Amino acid sequence: MRKIFLTAFAAFAVTAAASEVVKSPDGNLSLTFDLNEQGTPVYSMEYKGKAVVNPSKLGVELKTGKSLTDGFRLLRTTRDTFDETWTPVWGETKTIRNNYNEMAVRLAQDDNGKERYMIIRFRMYNDGMGLRYEWPKQENLTYFVIKEEHTQFAMTGDHKAYWIPGDYDTQEYDYCVCRLSEIRDEMHKYLNPENASTTVFSPTGVQTALQLKTDDGIYLNIHEAACVNYSTMSLNLDDKNLVFESWLTPDAVGDKGYMMAPCKSPWRTVMVVDNACKALDSKLILNLNEPCKIEDTSWIHPTKYMGVWWEMITGKGSWAYTNATAVNLDSINYAAMKPNGIHSANNENVKRYIDFASKHGFDELLVEGWNIGWEDWIGNMKDYVFDFVTPNPDFDIEALNKYAHEKGIKLMMHHETSGSLRNYERHMEAAYDLMNKYGYDAVKSGYVGPIIPRGEHHYGQWANNHYLYAIKQAAKHKIMVNAHEATRPTGLCRTYPNLVGNESARGTEYQAFGGTLPHHVTILPFTRLQGGPMDYTPGIFCMDISKFAPNNTSKVNSTLCNQLALYVTLYSPLQMAADMPENYERYMDAFQFIKDVAVDWDDSKYLAAEPGEYIIAARKAKGTDNWFVGGVTNGDARTMPVAFDFLDKDRKYVVTVYADAKDADYETNPEKYVITKGTVTSKDAVKMYMARGGGFAMSIYPATDADKGLKKLKIK
Amino acid sequence: MRKIFLTAFAAFAVTAAASEVVKSPDGNLSLTFDLNEQGTPVYSMEYKGKAVVNPSKLGVELKTGKSLTDGFRLLRTTRDTFDETWTPVWGETKTIRNNYNEMAVRLAQDDNGKERYMIIRFRMYNDGMGLRYEWPKQENLTYFVIKEEHTQFAMTGDHKAYWIPGDYDTQEYDYCVCRLSEIRDEMHKYLNPENASTTVFSPTGVQTALQLKTDDGIYLNIHEAACVNYSTMSLNLDDKNLVFESWLTPDAVGDKGYMMAPCKSPWRTVMVVDNACKALDSKLILNLNEPCKIEDTSWIHPTKYMGVWWEMITGKGSWAYTNATAVNLDSINYAAMKPNGIHSANNENVKRYIDFASKHGFDELLVEGWNIGWEDWIGNMKDYVFDFVTPNPDFDIEALNKYAHEKGIKLMMHHETSGSLRNYERHMEAAYDLMNKYGYDAVKSGYVGPIIPRGEHHYGQWANNHYLYAIKQAAKHKIMVNAHEATRPTGLCRTYPNLVGNESARGTEYQAFGGTLPHHVTILPFTRLQGGPMDYTPGIFCMDISKFAPNNTSKVNSTLCNQLALYVTLYSPLQMAADMPENYERYMDAFQFIKDVAVDWDDSKYLAAEPGEYIIAARKAKGTDNWFVGGVTNGDARTMPVAFDFLDKDRKYVVTVYADAKDADYETNPEKYVITKGTVTSKDAVKMYMARGGGFAMSIYPATDADKGLKKLKIK
Repeated sequence: MRKIFLTAFAAFAVTAAASEVVKSPDGNLSLTFDLNEQGTPVYSMEYKGKAVVNPSKLGVELKTGKSLTDGFRLLRTTRDTFDETWTPVWGETKTIRNNYNEMAVRLAQDDNGKERYMIIRFRMYNDGMGLRYEWPKQENLTYFVIKEEHTQFAMTGDHKAYWIPGDYDTQEYDYCVCRLSEIRDEMHKYLNPENASTTVFSPTGVQTALQLKTDDGIYLNIHEAACVNYSTMSLNLDDKNLVFESWLTPDAVGDKGYMMAPCKSPWRTVMVVDNACKALDSKLILNLNEPCKIEDTSWIHPTKYMGVWWEMITGKGSWAYTNATAVNLDSINYAAMKPNGIHSANNENVKRYIDFASKHGFDELLVEGWNIGWEDWIGNMKDYVFDFVTPNPDFDIEALNKYAHEKGIKLMMHHETSGSLRNYERHMEAAYDLMNKYGYDAVKSGYVGPIIPRGEHHYGQWANNHYLYAIKQAAKHKIMVNAHEATRPTGLCRTYPNLVGNESARGTEYQAFGGTLPHHVTILPFTRLQGGPMDYTPGIFCMDISKFAPNNTSKVNSTLCNQLALYVTLYSPLQMAADMPENYERYMDAFQFIKDVAVDWDDSKYLAAEPGEYIIAARKAKGTDNWFVGGVTNGDARTMPVAFDFLDKDRKYVVTVYADAKDADYETNPEKYVITKGTVTSKDAVKMYMARGGGFAMSIYPATDADKGLKKLKIK
Repeated sequence: MRKIFLTAFAAFAVTAAASEVVKSPDGNLSLTFDLNEQGTPVYSMEYKGKAVVNPSKLGVELKTGKSLTDGFRLLRTTRDTFDETWTPVWGETKTIRNNYNEMAVRLAQDDNGKERYMIIRFRMYNDGMGLRYEWPKQENLTYFVIKEEHTQFAMTGDHKAYWIPGDYDTQEYDYCVCRLSEIRDEMHKYLNPENASTTVFSPTGVQTALQLKTDDGIYLNIHEAACVNYSTMSLNLDDKNLVFESWLTPDAVGDKGYMMAPCKSPWRTVMVVDNACKALDSKLILNLNEPCKIEDTSWIHPTKYMGVWWEMITGKGSWAYTNATAVNLDSINYAAMKPNGIHSANNENVKRYIDFASKHGFDELLVEGWNIGWEDWIGNMKDYVFDFVTPNPDFDIEALNKYAHEKGIKLMMHHETSGSLRNYERHMEAAYDLMNKYGYDAVKSGYVGPIIPRGEHHYGQWANNHYLYAIKQAAKHKIMVNAHEATRPTGLCRTYPNLVGNESARGTEYQAFGGTLPHHVTILPFTRLQGGPMDYTPGIFCMDISKFAPNNTSKVNSTLCNQLALYVTLYSPLQMAADMPENYERYMDAFQFIKDVAVDWDDSKYLAAEPGEYIIAARKAKGTDNWFVGGVTNGDARTMPVAFDFLDKDRKYVVTVYADAKDADYETNPEKYVITKGTVTSKDAVKMYMARGGGFAMSIYPATDADKGLKKLKIK
C-alpha cells in the first residue's frame, strides 16, 4: 500500500531528474543542486567554470522524529530574478543595488506515510550566494526542535583562513591566519582553561564571517544573513576532508532551535570574488535582509561621539561610586556609603567632557558608570544587577543633560546588563522612558558575562531573540541601539536601522587589556563588518597607557595615524573618539582629522586591500564633494600607492595628509606623525608610507579661492 | 600558625559548650540545638517531654568551595519573645495571634583562615516550630550557589503519611496515605512514563506540606514559609532510618539557589499538635511571613465568582476560536479563518453567564478563552504563545465589561501563560493596563506546561521569582492574582494579600479528567491549604459529565452536598461556583446555599477532623452573626454529631441544613439531597449523615420575628 502511494505521488510530483543549476546575473558564479541517492540535498558552486564549493550536503537534524536530512524528492523548482536599487538610512554608499537570480527547490519527504515539505531557496549574486531553508505551512510539520543544522561548505583545497575560534559566548579574539589543515594545531592558543567565559566547542570550530583565500587568488567568505529567532551559526571543520559544517549554538538543555512552520532559517552565504576590494564592496549580507521595517526613520542619525569610558577601561577611573563589594539595589543607601573618589561619571568630570566634545563638534557624549550597581556587576551571576534608572549620587542626570543640550550635544545612555536578560527586559520600558524624558536618543548596551537565564548562551536563540526585542522596543521610543557583546550581526541593521552599531568582536578596549595584534584592523572589514557596523572605538592618541593609568602596563599596538585611518577603513555610522580630552589636547593638529571626518557617506571606494595585510579606503562624505581616505597596515611597514582617480575629473582639490613619520613604529614610536597639505587632481597619485602597525589618513575638499596659494601635494 | 589562630579565636568566640534549648510559650514544645563532633548543627524536638523529631542535621551544601555543613563553632545565642495580634486583610478569623519564643544561634566556620558566619533562627510556637538559615553581611561570604540544602527531619517512628510525590513541575496528584516505610512501594503508581510532564525525582520523594500522624496520635506537618527568591523544597526520605531531608528544585544547569548575603532561606516548619482540629486552626505558616507590604489594601476584596470555564474543561466547549492547528500571533488574521462554532467565550454565551451570575449575587465572572492564541497553546513549548491583550473576534471586551458593570458585577481576567515566563513578563504591563482600562480587578493566571526558559522548572528559584514579580506588578495596578500551576504557597498572601488564591494542587478540574479520590478534600486543608487559600472551584451539581459533554465519561466523585460543604471546609477568600447555569437551574434550592455562603470570616471553628476521613468546620461570616457549617467525608459513609455550642448562648438561630439523602452515594446517586430548616440554640446538637463521598452544609442566622412559626430543627 505504501509503495503504491509513493509511486503514484512520485509520478505526479517529480519534475526533474537532472541537476538544477542557477547562475549569478553576470554568469560567473553558478550553483548546482541535486539530491543524492539517499535523497539528501546537495549543492556545489563554480566560479568562472572552476569549482569553489565541492558537493556539499544540506539538511536539518531534528530532536525527535525523522530528520530533515534525507529521503527527499524534488517536487518542483521555481525561478525568479530580482533587480532593485534601494536607499539605506545610513551606509557606505548612497544606494545599494540588490540584483540576484533565485532558485527555490520544493522538496518532499515521506514520514511514515505523511508527507512533509521543505524548500531550499538559493539566491545568486555576482559576488556570492545565499541559501536558506524554508518550512511552509503544512499538515505534518509544524512544531519541531532542531538538534543540529547540517549545512556543509566543502572546500576545494587547503585554503588560507582568517579565523577566530567557534565559541558560544565570546567573539573577542585576535584572529589567526593559517591553512585549514593547520587550524587544529593553532587552536591550542585559544584554549585557556583560566578563561572561564570562553566556551570553545571544538578543536576545529570557527566563527563566521570566515574569510578564506584560495591558492588561485579567490576570496571566499562564509557567513549568515538575517538571523532572526534562530541561534547563531558557527562552523566546524572536518579537516581530513576540508568540509565545513554548520554548528548552531545550543540552549540550556542542548537544543539548538525551536521552530514553528511557516518559518525559515537565516541565509547561509558564500561570497566568491577574485579581488579583495570586491569583498569589502560586497553588500551581499545587507541585500539578503528584509527592507526597513521602521516607517519613520527621521530620528536615526549617524553619530560621532566621545565618552567617559577610556579612563575606566584603562583603570584610571571607576564605574562604581564606592568600593563596596556587594550592593543590594532594593536596600542600598548610597548616602551612607563612602565614595571611592575615583568615580569617573561625576558631574564635574562629565561637564569637562561635555565642554570638550561640544567645542569640537561632536554629536554625543557617552557616560558609563552613571547608574548605581557597578560595585558587584561582574563575576557574580547577579540577577538584579542594575535598575537602569537610578543615577549615582554624583551624577545629576537632569542638570547634565540640560548642560549638554545647551552646548548643542546629547548625552548617550549606557545600559550594561551583565548578561542578566530577564532583569533588563523587566526594566527596559522604564529605562527607555527615562531616556525619552531627559532627551537621550541612543543607548550603548552591554552583555558582559554569562547569560542569565543560566545555561543560555550569548549566541543562542534565546539571547538572539532578546537582542532583537531590545532593538524593536527601542525603536518605539525612537532610540538608537549600539549593543556590545551581543551576537555578531547578520545585516539586520537594514531592517532595523536604529541598530546603529554592535561590538561583537575584539574592540579597542583590548588595547588596554594587553593589546591586540596589529593585523586585526586589516581583517575586521572582511569578517566582522560584513554583517554590520562595529563600534570599534578608535582614536587612541596615547599608546602607553601607564602614562595616565600607572597600574596598567598595556600598550596600544597602533600608531596614531593608524588610529586616524580607522575612521575611514572601519565603516560605521557611529564613530567614537575614544581617548580622553587631555590626550587629544597634546595633538590637536592630528585631532583635527577626527573633527573633520564624516560618519555617513554617498560613496565608498576600496583602493587596495589584502586581509591580514592592508586596507586603503576612500569615502565621499554625505551630501558633499569632500572625500576622506584611510590606510592601515599590519605589523609590517609598507609603502602603498594612492591614486586620486576617484575624484571628479577636471577639478582641483585640497588634501591634508596625516602620515606616520619615517621613524614611527607601533612599538617604539607610535605617536610620531607628519601632516602635509597640498592640492591634487584626479590624475595625481602619491606613495604613502605606513609604519609597522601604522597607517595614514587624508581629508580632501574641492579647492576654493582661499586655497589659491596652496602648492601641489608632495609627500616626502 | 593556623592552629594558633583558630585556638585564639575559639577562646574568644565560643560562648556555650552545652546544648541550647528553646521552648514554645506554653512550654509543651521544646527544641534542642547543638553542634556535633564535626561541627554540624543538629536539632531535635520534644512535645510534652516526648521526642517528636530525633536529632537532625542542618546545613547547606555549596556548589563551589567549602560547604556550610560542618566545621562550625557557636559564637553566641540570642533569644527573644514575641506576642502580637494582627489583622489580616482577609482570612478565617478576624485577628491572628503571633506568639513565639525565638532563639538565634550565630555560627562561625573557618574557610582556609577566613571566617564565615551563618545564623540559624528558631521560632517556637505552641503549635509548631520554624527554623531558617540566615547569612548576614560578611567579608568572606557574599555570593554563593547552593548545590543542595541538607535540612533533616528525623522521624521517631514509622508514621502514617498523607503524601504526594516530590515533583519539580506538578502538584496535581491524588494523595496516598500509608506508613513511611511503604512510600517506596506506593510510589510506583505515580511513575507513569506516559506522563511526560511529571518530573518525580526520587522513589521516596514527597512534597510539602506533608501531613504525618504518629501512633501516639500526634499530628506533625512539615512545610515551609515565606519562600522568596529561593527554590521550593521537597523532602526525600531515607526510609531505612526514617529521616526526611530537604530536596530543592534545581535550575536548568542543576543548581539549586543563587544567593547574595545578606540573605536568608525560607522557614522550614514542623507543626506539632495532638488534635487534628488544632492542625487546621494553625496559623504557623502565615505568622512566619512578613506583615503586609501593600499600604492601601482597600481594593482587595473576597470574591465569589462564576466562570465560563467548566464547559471547556469538560470538553463541551472550546477555548479556541478556530480549529487551526497553529497560529502565528504576529500574522494571524482571524477574519479570514473559520470559527469552530464551539468557542465558549462568545458574546452571547458570556452575556448568559453575566445574567445568571448577577441575578444571583456573584461578584465576578471569569471568562477563559477570551483572547487569541488558544489554538496551539499547549504541548508545543511555544514561546510567543499569547499576547494577553487581543480578544477573539466574538468577544467584545468593551461591550461585555460594560454589560457586566451595568448588572453590578465585574468580569475576571484570565492570563494563561503556557509556562512561557519571558513572554508573559514582556506583555504583563500592557496586559494589566488593559485590565485597568476595562475595569477588571482580578486575574486568574495559569502556568500549564513546561517552563520556558527551557530547563527551568515550575518550582525553581527562577519561576518562584517570576510568580512574586507578577504579584507585585499586579499590586501596582490594584489587581488581585489567583495563580494556577504556580508553586505551592508558603503564606506569602500575608505579605501580599492581593495574592487571593492559588491552585497548586489537584483541583476540581480533575473530576472532568477521570476523577479524584473522595478523600482528597479531607486532606487538602491539612496540606495544601496550610500555605494559603486554594482556588479549588467547587460547586459541581451534575456529576455525570457525559450528560452535557457526551465524549467525556468522567464522573465527579462527590455528592452534591459534599460540593456545598467545600465552600466552608476549604477556606478561600475566592470561591467559585464552577458549574454552568443550566446545571444550577435544576437544583435552585440547593444553589441557595452557594448564594448565601460567605467568603470572608470573623471566626472559624473546626468541630471535627481527621485527615483522609472527615472534616467539619463552622465559620462566622464577616461583620454578621451568621454562621455556616460544612462537613465532608471520604469514600466512607458516616454519621457525625454536630453541636451548636459555637453559637451565642441564650439566642435562637434559624438553620437550613443541606444533607445527603439516605440513598445518596457519590457513585450511584450523587445528586440526591434533603433540605431541612428549623431553629437551634447553642445547647442543641444534631447527628449528620454523610454518604460515601458526601457531606452536608448549614446556613445559620439569628432568628427574627419572621421566623417565629419555625419549629426546632429536626434531622431525620
